[in-house]
Amino acid sequence: MKAVVYKGPFSVAVENAPDPEIKHPNDVIVRITSSCICGSDLHMYEGRTAAEPGIIFGHENLGVVQEIGSAVKTLKPGDRVVLPFNVACGFCKNCQRGFTGFCTTVNPGFAGGAYGYVAMGPWRGGQAEYLQVPFADFNCLPLPPGEDHEADFAMLADIFPTGYHGAALADVSPGESAAVFGAGPVGLMAAYSCLIRGAAEVYSIDHVPERLDKAAEIGATPINFDQGDPVQQIKERRKGDGVDKAIDAVGYQACAPGSSAAGGEQDEVPNIVLNQLIEVVNAAGALGIPGLYVPADPGGVDENAKRGALSINFGKLFEKGLRLATGQCNVKLYNAYLRDLIIAGKASPSFVVSHQVPLDEAPSAYDKFDKRIEGYTKVILKP
Amino acid sequence: MKAVVYKGPFSVAVENAPDPEIKHPNDVIVRITSSCICGSDLHMYEGRTAAEPGIIFGHENLGVVQEIGSAVKTLKPGDRVVLPFNVACGFCKNCQRGFTGFCTTVNPGFAGGAYGYVAMGPWRGGQAEYLQVPFADFNCLPLPPGEDHEADFAMLADIFPTGYHGAALADVSPGESAAVFGAGPVGLMAAYSCLIRGAAEVYSIDHVPERLDKAAEIGATPINFDQGDPVQQIKERRKGDGVDKAIDAVGYQACAPGSSAAGGEQDEVPNIVLNQLIEVVNAAGALGIPGLYVPADPGGVDENAKRGALSINFGKLFEKGLRLATGQCNVKLYNAYLRDLIIAGKASPSFVVSHQVPLDEAPSAYDKFDKRIEGYTKVILKP
Amino acid sequence: MKAVVYKGPFSVAVENAPDPEIKHPNDVIVRITSSCICGSDLHMYEGRTAAEPGIIFGHENLGVVQEIGSAVKTLKPGDRVVLPFNVACGFCKNCQRGFTGFCTTVNPGFAGGAYGYVAMGPWRGGQAEYLQVPFADFNCLPLPPGEDHEADFAMLADIFPTGYHGAALADVSPGESAAVFGAGPVGLMAAYSCLIRGAAEVYSIDHVPERLDKAAEIGATPINFDQGDPVQQIKERRKGDGVDKAIDAVGYQACAPGSSAAGGEQDEVPNIVLNQLIEVVNAAGALGIPGLYVPADPGGVDENAKRGALSINFGKLFEKGLRLATGQCNVKLYNAYLRDLIIAGKASPSFVVSHQVPLDEAPSAYDKFDKRIEGYTKVILKP
Amino acid sequence: MKAVVYKGPFSVAVENAPDPEIKHPNDVIVRITSSCICGSDLHMYEGRTAAEPGIIFGHENLGVVQEIGSAVKTLKPGDRVVLPFNVACGFCKNCQRGFTGFCTTVNPGFAGGAYGYVAMGPWRGGQAEYLQVPFADFNCLPLPPGEDHEADFAMLADIFPTGYHGAALADVSPGESAAVFGAGPVGLMAAYSCLIRGAAEVYSIDHVPERLDKAAEIGATPINFDQGDPVQQIKERRKGDGVDKAIDAVGYQACAPGSSAAGGEQDEVPNIVLNQLIEVVNAAGALGIPGLYVPADPGGVDENAKRGALSINFGKLFEKGLRLATGQCNVKLYNAYLRDLIIAGKASPSFVVSHQVPLDEAPSAYDKFDKRIEGYTKVILKP
Repeated sequence: MKAVVYKGPFSVAVENAPDPEIKHPNDVIVRITSSCICGSDLHMYEGRTAAEPGIIFGHENLGVVQEIGSAVKTLKPGDRVVLPFNVACGFCKNCQRGFTGFCTTVNPGFAGGAYGYVAMGPWRGGQAEYLQVPFADFNCLPLPPGEDHEADFAMLADIFPTGYHGAALADVSPGESAAVFGAGPVGLMAAYSCLIRGAAEVYSIDHVPERLDKAAEIGATPINFDQGDPVQQIKERRKGDGVDKAIDAVGYQACAPGSSAAGGEQDEVPNIVLNQLIEVVNAAGALGIPGLYVPADPGGVDENAKRGALSINFGKLFEKGLRLATGQCNVKLYNAYLRDLIIAGKASPSFVVSHQVPLDEAPSAYDKFDKRIEGYTKVILKP
Repeated sequence: MKAVVYKGPFSVAVENAPDPEIKHPNDVIVRITSSCICGSDLHMYEGRTAAEPGIIFGHENLGVVQEIGSAVKTLKPGDRVVLPFNVACGFCKNCQRGFTGFCTTVNPGFAGGAYGYVAMGPWRGGQAEYLQVPFADFNCLPLPPGEDHEADFAMLADIFPTGYHGAALADVSPGESAAVFGAGPVGLMAAYSCLIRGAAEVYSIDHVPERLDKAAEIGATPINFDQGDPVQQIKERRKGDGVDKAIDAVGYQACAPGSSAAGGEQDEVPNIVLNQLIEVVNAAGALGIPGLYVPADPGGVDENAKRGALSINFGKLFEKGLRLATGQCNVKLYNAYLRDLIIAGKASPSFVVSHQVPLDEAPSAYDKFDKRIEGYTKVILKP
Repeated sequence: MKAVVYKGPFSVAVENAPDPEIKHPNDVIVRITSSCICGSDLHMYEGRTAAEPGIIFGHENLGVVQEIGSAVKTLKPGDRVVLPFNVACGFCKNCQRGFTGFCTTVNPGFAGGAYGYVAMGPWRGGQAEYLQVPFADFNCLPLPPGEDHEADFAMLADIFPTGYHGAALADVSPGESAAVFGAGPVGLMAAYSCLIRGAAEVYSIDHVPERLDKAAEIGATPINFDQGDPVQQIKERRKGDGVDKAIDAVGYQACAPGSSAAGGEQDEVPNIVLNQLIEVVNAAGALGIPGLYVPADPGGVDENAKRGALSINFGKLFEKGLRLATGQCNVKLYNAYLRDLIIAGKASPSFVVSHQVPLDEAPSAYDKFDKRIEGYTKVILKP
Repeated sequence: MKAVVYKGPFSVAVENAPDPEIKHPNDVIVRITSSCICGSDLHMYEGRTAAEPGIIFGHENLGVVQEIGSAVKTLKPGDRVVLPFNVACGFCKNCQRGFTGFCTTVNPGFAGGAYGYVAMGPWRGGQAEYLQVPFADFNCLPLPPGEDHEADFAMLADIFPTGYHGAALADVSPGESAAVFGAGPVGLMAAYSCLIRGAAEVYSIDHVPERLDKAAEIGATPINFDQGDPVQQIKERRKGDGVDKAIDAVGYQACAPGSSAAGGEQDEVPNIVLNQLIEVVNAAGALGIPGLYVPADPGGVDENAKRGALSINFGKLFEKGLRLATGQCNVKLYNAYLRDLIIAGKASPSFVVSHQVPLDEAPSAYDKFDKRIEGYTKVILKP
């Protein structure tokens, strides 16, 4: 089969790879119809991780069941399914409690696994024609047959649940005010999710005009941090008041005001967003942090950043009595509910998709997405 | 009346002060029968805050209603009551939601007020014969008449709820394992509260042998951090596993292994406990942080510490998907329930009390408690 | 002042009544600008309660503070406020925990008080020029000055929070399906609230075409129970599946299919909706029951109904593992958040208002509303 | 192998049955070392269900893995495990959310399955030498090797979690008061669980002196309902106050005061406990109902009872604003935590076990247990 293979920093190729096979009775093979490029794929693409050449990328996967293992109970060939980016077993202590992003079975010695990602276990990615899916009864989310909502449903693999996770971690509730830092695909999904959860006011903070325009289109209030301290901008609009809840959809590659849209290590201020969150929420508020922070970052701006240690205004955090929650999204907590919102016409997350291109064009798509040129913000590869 | 007045660093005196008066229709005057010295009083006593001489100390107060304001509905002279250390109005947005430690009414411009404490509003302390209590229907917790359980009930003003708050912030639940850092009075109350909440295993970390003995007496497993990395000690006892939940009952004056019991600025490592918490819990766990962190500490070990900025292993925190909750205890969330446990004979928090002395002996009690000599660990002043 | 006074079954008059006075330091007097007639006022109007002539009706009140008691802290004359229908103290055990509909202070010997309602305490109603409001700092919800959103804000006194309470009791969550029985004002508010909370599908069950039209307008799916068993209608639309959650916004005066819109005792089947709720939800689902059930109903259809005992399919309820929650709305849990949705333009509950008439026209408005003629469904009286 | 086979009303025999086999790759075969007789087995034994002769009884099973299917990941022969009485898949909508008692996979057309029970699917019981366990990675709870705590661990299959479920459904929390109706094995486990969860006061209501003695031994207050209305007895002890929470551990075979210990249809008052629960709790309280109610009971006392319809004081329930939760226990929500309490020495639920007998003596054990003679209250069969 054809697959997108990592060749080294800033290089991927579409190559032939062995077809995946049923290796375990609970496996299925899925024929991929949509597989997205994720911003987190760029961490590997840019050589900013320990990823070795040869990895098949792709953890945002949707397709049709092609073949099933002998133990599979609820799936049959022809079923259309979307896969959470986290690979999970369904029965370990963490999976049982809903923490499927921290499965201890699928990636021995570590809590959490994913398709096509460095250090996340032996699972090949889905930017390819076929994908092996383990513990298939647990991992496959059934979709209506056909091709309706294909792009919306593709968002269920990662970014829609991940954005929603931010809102859930911060417990954004009806009538509340929320500030969402970052208006990339995940940030937009987080702002969108705050609105779905009934927030009265949502502020969306970024400095890329196209992103802020999208935020305004969905009903959030855009705040451009190149135009002044975003915390002060929000407090001015709220007559001195902060917000109830805040979400970090940026992560450790946060950049300083005035830096370029595509970012760059020289512009990074890895703790800037975290400290802005602490500043912008009112006492007794909550912070949701789906944005990625890592314990080892070879490209970190200093020795502390390289080991994931950040200077946090903890005294202020305590004085305000804040709570915060972090971590990779547990996709299965949310994906069936978000699917039903799409089917009911109440959510259309594909508004973030900028391009859909054949699998063969993956190299150029990676290049343009990485450079944030020609409007590349969210790409679906179509094998 | 007689009252304990702050005279300057390392000095308090028992002096005459004007009797408090009903200043507002919702006030009552309480004749104090027990008022404890809190570890946090020592921050002021040691000159480590902005406290000016003249403050009457005392935020852990119990007594008998002497006089009531014209608007008071549920109290009458003679009623025995214990007062939460937080002064709260009962009707602001935060009080309504249970966050009575962050009342926005009683200390204008700030969220939270307390008796006898610097920057916590105009409220005089209760290490005195009488105390003015505002919003009395809201702030007074009724007790059975008489003198039974006097020392147990005195713990309801602060340290028993504050310890319990740590367990609640970490959501310690039946059958779970928990590590409680610090076995001073609040740490012991936190460990005790974990057990009340049904924890299966509780580790209590300190390096003062007397404290660790108390921890063992109540059923916790003592871990002496002078005898090796406490995280490793706990994981060894658990065959490599961490714990479900962890509590920081130490705060910013955390000290390094091998330092003296009374501590001292030169021994402080303000982020050591926070990073140990992150290390000791399992993925998807939770941290409760009732230990005090402050946004401005003139005596901080470095420039960052002076402004309450600490180096936190945030990459690791995120990778494990942890959540944490902080802040001053909202005493009213818990105090009626903890009172009922005392009345039912199911809790006796006074096991932490080392001394009960007449109010007149306050100067010597402060001195000995500050030096941790003669077994002074928790003192009740009896006016 | 002028006030709407109950004269006996099917009779109210606008009469002169003594102006209310500040009786307690925490009181304020509010000059009423909007006071609604509630469906529950009709219980008294129809003589179906123990209400004695002389009661001033009106528990859905909005106005401007006219005068304040000496203990009031946060209000001043001229402030625009809306009052929860429940009178509450803010400091009893129930109020502290948010159960302000079950205050034990304001109506001695009973849990819960209200303005202008039989057996709900000594509080006069607000269908009048002025209203005494006790515990004013706690009971008054501040509104923006002026007259904007007057009808929307008037809904905050009762029916918007009460409808929302139904959705909260059933814990309706994003992406779920819900069935709301009853599309009168509270039922419509419940359906509206389910949508605000992010429900994917909401079914609205009634048999009055105008109500069902309103339900469809706000995005719910109307189900007419005169056209067949509503449970079967819903399951057919869902391919045999039930719903996640169900809400009873009807109460004990539920009527049989084919009965007239205005109802009548002969048509009542007091347990019909409760058993339909049990039938329509899936296993492990939840029921929210804001619809009124009473422990004594002189007009009940049989001896059991007269004492509030209903035949419930409890075996089925248990087999499905359902949970249910009931009771009068605790308005203060929700009203500030719902106000903020109105201000942000995200909710406009006044779509249920059919008429706004001068206070003097109260007798005719009661008559028409009781008969459900001339489109009278929700009336605001304007003193 | 030998197995306990149902022969007809009041008759079981130990007979030879075919050895179970691995039928599905996720199965394991467990060699049973302990299998308890449950009170709910007596429903079948007494002919009060649709159970046909030939069923192998036994849903409270503990043993050692003998053989594993090809898909099993985390188990190996020799592992000691206890099985929840509910058979569950781990991946259906209900299992995912923790409602493993309502699995929709294992018993097609119904939500919920169990071993050895009429209408609960094709799963043979474990009162036998061997047992087939499906979805074994999900259903097996690992235990420490050896034979320690064998009787305590056997309680983890059903009655300890089921009692705990009652306390969880009522959300019994530290410092609260609770009334537990029924002091049979499940009722005692519920009272014990309330205490584990930190309740201040627990009342245990029954009329069998031996049961009430056990309740007193574990720290509950016994209330004998033959000696007067239990609600009044509790309120008198509490100076007129009710309790925060109440639990029904009796179910539909509730009996009138003065009836015999073994019960009998003529003494049944199926709604008596439910209405006592409503009466005994305070406003805004909660009810947990793990006691069994069924939608079809051929032996019901009247036509309504035969179809599971009970007369409930719903008006009172609503007036008090109560919430209630019902249903079969989801054992996997609790069993690992309860196991850890046993291992830590903090729980010893085997205090309810009256007899341990060889499997061969099952017929006499059933007879004596059904007649409640010779102290038979909880029997473990030892194959």
